[in-house]
Amino acid sequence: MPKVYILNGPNLNLLGQRQPEIYGSTTLADIEARCRELGRELGVEIGFFQSNHEGQIIDTIHEARHQAQAIIINPAAFTHTSVAILDALNAFDGPVLEVHISNVHKREGFRHHSYVSLRADGVIAGFGTHGYALALRHAASMIL
Amino acid sequence: MPKVYILNGPNLNLLGQRQPEIYGSTTLADIEARCRELGRELGVEIGFFQSNHEGQIIDTIHEARHQAQAIIINPAAFTHTSVAILDALNAFDGPVLEVHISNVHKREGFRHHSYVSLRADGVIAGFGTHGYALALRHAASMIL
Amino acid sequence: MPKVYILNGPNLNLLGQRQPEIYGSTTLADIEARCRELGRELGVEIGFFQSNHEGQIIDTIHEARHQAQAIIINPAAFTHTSVAILDALNAFDGPVLEVHISNVHKREGFRHHSYVSLRADGVIAGFGTHGYALALRHAASMIL
Amino acid sequence: MPKVYILNGPNLNLLGQRQPEIYGSTTLADIEARCRELGRELGVEIGFFQSNHEGQIIDTIHEARHQAQAIIINPAAFTHTSVAILDALNAFDGPVLEVHISNVHKREGFRHHSYVSLRADGVIAGFGTHGYALALRHAASMIL
Amino acid sequence: MPKVYILNGPNLNLLGQRQPEIYGSTTLADIEARCRELGRELGVEIGFFQSNHEGQIIDTIHEARHQAQAIIINPAAFTHTSVAILDALNAFDGPVLEVHISNVHKREGFRHHSYVSLRADGVIAGFGTHGYALALRHAASMIL
Amino acid sequence: MPKVYILNGPNLNLLGQRQPEIYGSTTLADIEARCRELGRELGVEIGFFQSNHEGQIIDTIHEARHQAQAIIINPAAFTHTSVAILDALNAFDGPVLEVHISNVHKREGFRHHSYVSLRADGVIAGFGTHGYALALRHAASMIL
Amino acid sequence: MPKVYILNGPNLNLLGQRQPEIYGSTTLADIEARCRELGRELGVEIGFFQSNHEGQIIDTIHEARHQAQAIIINPAAFTHTSVAILDALNAFDGPVLEVHISNVHKREGFRHHSYVSLRADGVIAGFGTHGYALALRHAASMIL
Amino acid sequence: MPKVYILNGPNLNLLGQRQPEIYGSTTLADIEARCRELGRELGVEIGFFQSNHEGQIIDTIHEARHQAQAIIINPAAFTHTSVAILDALNAFDGPVLEVHISNVHKREGFRHHSYVSLRADGVIAGFGTHGYALALRHAASMIL
Amino acid sequence: MPKVYILNGPNLNLLGQRQPEIYGSTTLADIEARCRELGRELGVEIGFFQSNHEGQIIDTIHEARHQAQAIIINPAAFTHTSVAILDALNAFDGPVLEVHISNVHKREGFRHHSYVSLRADGVIAGFGTHGYALALRHAASMIL
Amino acid sequence: MPKVYILNGPNLNLLGQRQPEIYGSTTLADIEARCRELGRELGVEIGFFQSNHEGQIIDTIHEARHQAQAIIINPAAFTHTSVAILDALNAFDGPVLEVHISNVHKREGFRHHSYVSLRADGVIAGFGTHGYALALRHAASMIL
Amino acid sequence: MPKVYILNGPNLNLLGQRQPEIYGSTTLADIEARCRELGRELGVEIGFFQSNHEGQIIDTIHEARHQAQAIIINPAAFTHTSVAILDALNAFDGPVLEVHISNVHKREGFRHHSYVSLRADGVIAGFGTHGYALALRHAASMIL
Amino acid sequence: MPKVYILNGPNLNLLGQRQPEIYGSTTLADIEARCRELGRELGVEIGFFQSNHEGQIIDTIHEARHQAQAIIINPAAFTHTSVAILDALNAFDGPVLEVHISNVHKREGFRHHSYVSLRADGVIAGFGTHGYALALRHAASMIL
Repeated sequence: MPKVYILNGPNLNLLGQRQPEIYGSTTLADIEARCRELGRELGVEIGFFQSNHEGQIIDTIHEARHQAQAIIINPAAFTHTSVAILDALNAFDGPVLEVHISNVHKREGFRHHSYVSLRADGVIAGFGTHGYALALRHAASMIL
Repeated sequence: MPKVYILNGPNLNLLGQRQPEIYGSTTLADIEARCRELGRELGVEIGFFQSNHEGQIIDTIHEARHQAQAIIINPAAFTHTSVAILDALNAFDGPVLEVHISNVHKREGFRHHSYVSLRADGVIAGFGTHGYALALRHAASMIL
Repeated sequence: MPKVYILNGPNLNLLGQRQPEIYGSTTLADIEARCRELGRELGVEIGFFQSNHEGQIIDTIHEARHQAQAIIINPAAFTHTSVAILDALNAFDGPVLEVHISNVHKREGFRHHSYVSLRADGVIAGFGTHGYALALRHAASMIL
Repeated sequence: MPKVYILNGPNLNLLGQRQPEIYGSTTLADIEARCRELGRELGVEIGFFQSNHEGQIIDTIHEARHQAQAIIINPAAFTHTSVAILDALNAFDGPVLEVHISNVHKREGFRHHSYVSLRADGVIAGFGTHGYALALRHAASMIL
Repeated sequence: MPKVYILNGPNLNLLGQRQPEIYGSTTLADIEARCRELGRELGVEIGFFQSNHEGQIIDTIHEARHQAQAIIINPAAFTHTSVAILDALNAFDGPVLEVHISNVHKREGFRHHSYVSLRADGVIAGFGTHGYALALRHAASMIL
Repeated sequence: MPKVYILNGPNLNLLGQRQPEIYGSTTLADIEARCRELGRELGVEIGFFQSNHEGQIIDTIHEARHQAQAIIINPAAFTHTSVAILDALNAFDGPVLEVHISNVHKREGFRHHSYVSLRADGVIAGFGTHGYALALRHAASMIL
Repeated sequence: MPKVYILNGPNLNLLGQRQPEIYGSTTLADIEARCRELGRELGVEIGFFQSNHEGQIIDTIHEARHQAQAIIINPAAFTHTSVAILDALNAFDGPVLEVHISNVHKREGFRHHSYVSLRADGVIAGFGTHGYALALRHAASMIL
Repeated sequence: MPKVYILNGPNLNLLGQRQPEIYGSTTLADIEARCRELGRELGVEIGFFQSNHEGQIIDTIHEARHQAQAIIINPAAFTHTSVAILDALNAFDGPVLEVHISNVHKREGFRHHSYVSLRADGVIAGFGTHGYALALRHAASMIL
Repeated sequence: MPKVYILNGPNLNLLGQRQPEIYGSTTLADIEARCRELGRELGVEIGFFQSNHEGQIIDTIHEARHQAQAIIINPAAFTHTSVAILDALNAFDGPVLEVHISNVHKREGFRHHSYVSLRADGVIAGFGTHGYALALRHAASMIL
Repeated sequence: MPKVYILNGPNLNLLGQRQPEIYGSTTLADIEARCRELGRELGVEIGFFQSNHEGQIIDTIHEARHQAQAIIINPAAFTHTSVAILDALNAFDGPVLEVHISNVHKREGFRHHSYVSLRADGVIAGFGTHGYALALRHAASMIL
Repeated sequence: MPKVYILNGPNLNLLGQRQPEIYGSTTLADIEARCRELGRELGVEIGFFQSNHEGQIIDTIHEARHQAQAIIINPAAFTHTSVAILDALNAFDGPVLEVHISNVHKREGFRHHSYVSLRADGVIAGFGTHGYALALRHAASMIL
Repeated sequence: MPKVYILNGPNLNLLGQRQPEIYGSTTLADIEARCRELGRELGVEIGFFQSNHEGQIIDTIHEARHQAQAIIINPAAFTHTSVAILDALNAFDGPVLEVHISNVHKREGFRHHSYVSLRADGVIAGFGTHGYALALRHAASMIL
């Protein structure tokens, strides 16, 4: 069964616990549960990860080269600062979809630039936690 | 029945006829047909428009204030140059979702900035013509 | 009797209907009425126009070359993006006064630059809808 | 009787004596006389000041907090350089109107930015010395 | 007989009537007449258009895709602001030649950048109205 | 007893061992000892950490959400590059004080910008290792 | 007995009277009283000054060269605009500490740059009026 | 018989030998031959020069002050870096036409700025080697 | 006898007392003495002033309009920040010469820009205190 | 025997497996083998490390302070983003040589700036994997 | 007898022949004559050179290392573009004085930056051809 | 026998004679001798050139097109300013290696950008005069 890695960057482990007016009350565990359920429905296996460590995200992208057919990534703050994640994604051959829960373009200027978008096949921002499901459906349609 | 306006900016009437390596061979009529079908399924009426005239797009956004509960807009080249469309959208109270067929962040530098994103609730780019359907589903979930 | 053209750019047809905390509740029709009344008092005829179409505004400026002795223009969003309107105004020989209802310098950075100011003889901003009357008095004093 | 302070920045004491092709031949004393006359007509008392010293202008703004209901200020060269005057005006509660005799937007680039505009309720530029009267009428309408 | 579209942007209808010290006294009708005469001599049919409306220029470029083998365009003020015209020209397969009557590089800084040049095969500026004939000869040599 | 976390960024483990002309000969252990002593005096418990790993600093800030009432942070090189630490601090509700041993404004240009300052309640720089004690006293006064 | 000059820039005479949500209700007289009391405790004499005139602040810094062993300065708006105060401080040999009541890094962009920081030995911002006492303790420790 | 100097900057001696996909296979000798032939036809004498030395180009422009009535210059790489050639051309009284074989606006960013265009009466780019003939015809029409 | 005003900006009263490695040990009184002696020799009267107050320098420039035929000014730190002094000098009709003791171009970047140079007829920097004498000789040659 | 640490940044573990058209097919293990062999020949011991974790690279640089006489570092993506690695290298006393396999100056703009180069004694780029051997020879010559 | 080299950059051989409204009618030969006469009076030998070739100017500066005790240079257009002349001057040990006939700060923006000023001990601009004599006197005073 | 051209830019003829603290005491003749010796060892002929004239360097690069299989170039100051040398190198088909004796990234900002690096296959900086030998070995390995 094809596999999709869903990677989550720093501070997303706090989802649902901080700034609910921006991010809502859904937790990352809720998102993982929904993605796994949707994965079963679509016929794709899910690998779901979160880390506050840039190095672990890179390691997991490397692992995905042999384990997964597509990557969905919400790089959070690393979106704007990590050339290393961009390079890791450049070494991955399948589709890469970038998800942001809020519309980053409406926040501070330094959040408008994304290194990851230079590699991503698609970007979805501001669709709330719903963006994960949309990206997963799209990824599935690309690899099935 | 609630109504969603789907607005398309300049040159999108040529969709499927030019640069198929970037935009694919789907035409705007195909997209309209799919959106109408999906609208029926979701229970939302669809208003579907395209214009090469900035003024007509503004007029249609004004009309949407009284006719529609949500706007999906692919502003095409006006994305990067039209403050007037931004202002028109600022006068619309419902959700606004911005769609780009390709990942604009991978194209020329002047295509990286979007005035429309300053107003949009969500942005989706690089999901191909599939992005319209994703945006429509999301819009429906917001207004139903 | 000398004539003054008063031109209004995109979205100003919504005046009084949107964001009253910024623009107040006066409508464009109210402004027109007041201007016509003041025009009678001052002895100048008024041509009053609004369009969301940049091209129509240019056409009207061209028409003004033969019909009017002065132009008052609130270019709204076109202020910041239209070199074409600047060029049209450069072809008009009489006084040109630029009016903005709010103080555009207090809004987003991209609203701080005005192409029209490169041609205007005078600029008035932040005087509310009162600015039209002030500009009209001043225009009258220049052409009578 | 309500009072309006009219403050004039550096070099305005030379008005009418230098560069008449830009500023005309009206002197500051002429402006003061007209403002006082118009003040009588409108029913507002006038405080009229000029200084080449930034500190004195700040002191006078502080004084205005207890003496005046509105401030009209032509900050001249301090427009572009004085954060301190901006801060002083931020401590004043009534309306603040900014006047420039010439259209500063048509002069050198460093004259396009105004710190005072970040606080001013209205700005009037390029109406010649007539701008003072327009501002005074507007100030009166706001405090009466 | 092959056909060349000659498109003229905003304010060019005023040619010969304004700023003769920059643009000379030749009118657009004169240019059209000369181009038609030269077209007969060269054996190419001429489509000659002018509009102050960006949308109409885009529509005409789209029409040219089926009607013409080459486009000569003097985009005037749209040169510097219209990504939409650039995109329309990108959808045209034949040669595109850009003409400016004056040397835009000697005018204001914002006239130095041309979106159209990103697509044009050739650019001619500062040759006066003679530039149209030069461009037409060159276009003819490319399509005959 | 209320608790203050004192976090130290990369290379601070070398304090007292490198560039003593800039940082003096005090070691991080010395600072910890003084802070613990001062904490006893002030009646606040101290959590003292150092890491060269951005991820560990983020993890510790997350931990502080449940363990501490205030954070003092010397982000060292991460000051200028870590949006992720800023986001982590944004999820912490108590006071955040930023300490730099040297006056960073006197060093290279890229050290003048601080992401952490966008969240910090107070910033102290150039007071040497004394800055920790000053920050601790101030933090104590805010939470006791 | 060694002496410390505490200098306060423009508008600080209004402290406690304006924008208490930013600056609190403590007045400059309160700060002076506390500093004098703390000075007695520490064994340093205090010279306490405020001026809205840049020239007077420079004069006082010159005086301090012969009268004081250290300077504490809250330059307020002059922080961002006065090269002359920087030059005056460069002619002072003892320690210079810069104090800002609020965290200037969280305010408008033009408040992020400090000329005074190019000379100051230490900078403290956002510690409220408490910052004066912290700076005074530190200054005392440097000169005693 | 009037004379036109045609000056060619660095590396143009290699024309036809390098990067034929950009510059075609025409050599500089071919261009010279065509220009001389066209010169005979038009009744103007031709001076044709190439140098890789900026100083020689300047010397030749100085010579042209007494020898030629017009200059056609393809400054090649010196276009973007030589203020000295600009100054030399400023000392020449006749028409100056600037030719680039390729459309420099479509190449790297540092090739978009031309010092020579600040002086040139006309600029022609992207017309291939045909541009020389077009410029020569135009120069002839200006001096005959 | 014609008169030259020699104006000195902030901190120059300390000349010879601070940073002798940059400015030497000559005092302002020494410079004044030499200028007066040279003035006698040249047959021009000298007005010699120094102030740390921008306003006083402006007042003195205004006075010079009626008292002096030329101005020599060392604006010191005001060089880089004072538009008001520039405007005052713009109102003076005679020659204006700008003197800097050190070569400001070798110091910090913010010292490279001079508002005064936009008006000055001549600028001399890095000639030490000798620059005053050179400027005085030149001023004398212009007004005698 | 003197020791050289050879540090490799993120994604270099994939060398030889990704983008062979840029990086060739040599693996990091191949490079390590060659370096060890060359080390034996030169009489220097080799410490060879790779990590995707910035913190581990910093830790290893700290370790090198006591274990190695020179550092060769290929910082990969951290080149452009890590001030912390720069600071760690600043605390190392021996020679530091920076190696890039490809010529980074020919890639995207954000790869043109290197924080590490601010500390490195030498930089070598675009010599392929051969660069390691060249750097090792040079390092050996500096410490033997 | 000590020797001063006076170097003149491109186009200065035309002095007195072009743009007399900017540069006057004095020729370079006139300047040379005056400098030689003044040199005799001051007791310094003069080497006087002009070249339109950057390389020759560099060669002459190298020669000056062994032949001259001071250099006076009017780099003309090379002022703004030649790092190589800067480097050559950096290899000269004696005083370097930079002369510009006009006040370059009043001309185009690209003439405001001088590479030569980064090395020059003194700069004189806008004193007309008189600047050479002033510089020569100053150079003489430095080397005698 | 294959041939390598080693080109040296302006001021390198002074090597070993100026600023030995930066460049050491090795002369260019020493470098040439070593390169020739190493060339004999490697079996490649050496062409060794230095010029202060950009044009001569370009001429020599053109010559190399027919005489040499590789180019090693130390462009010195031309690194940062010469588009013409870049263009000449673009017309050379073999490997190009760029050498800088010092680490230019540690010097002034304008030395950080290299036009030559846009063409060079490899760049080596800060390896002292040793860099020539390393580059020569690498060039030999590429062409043998």
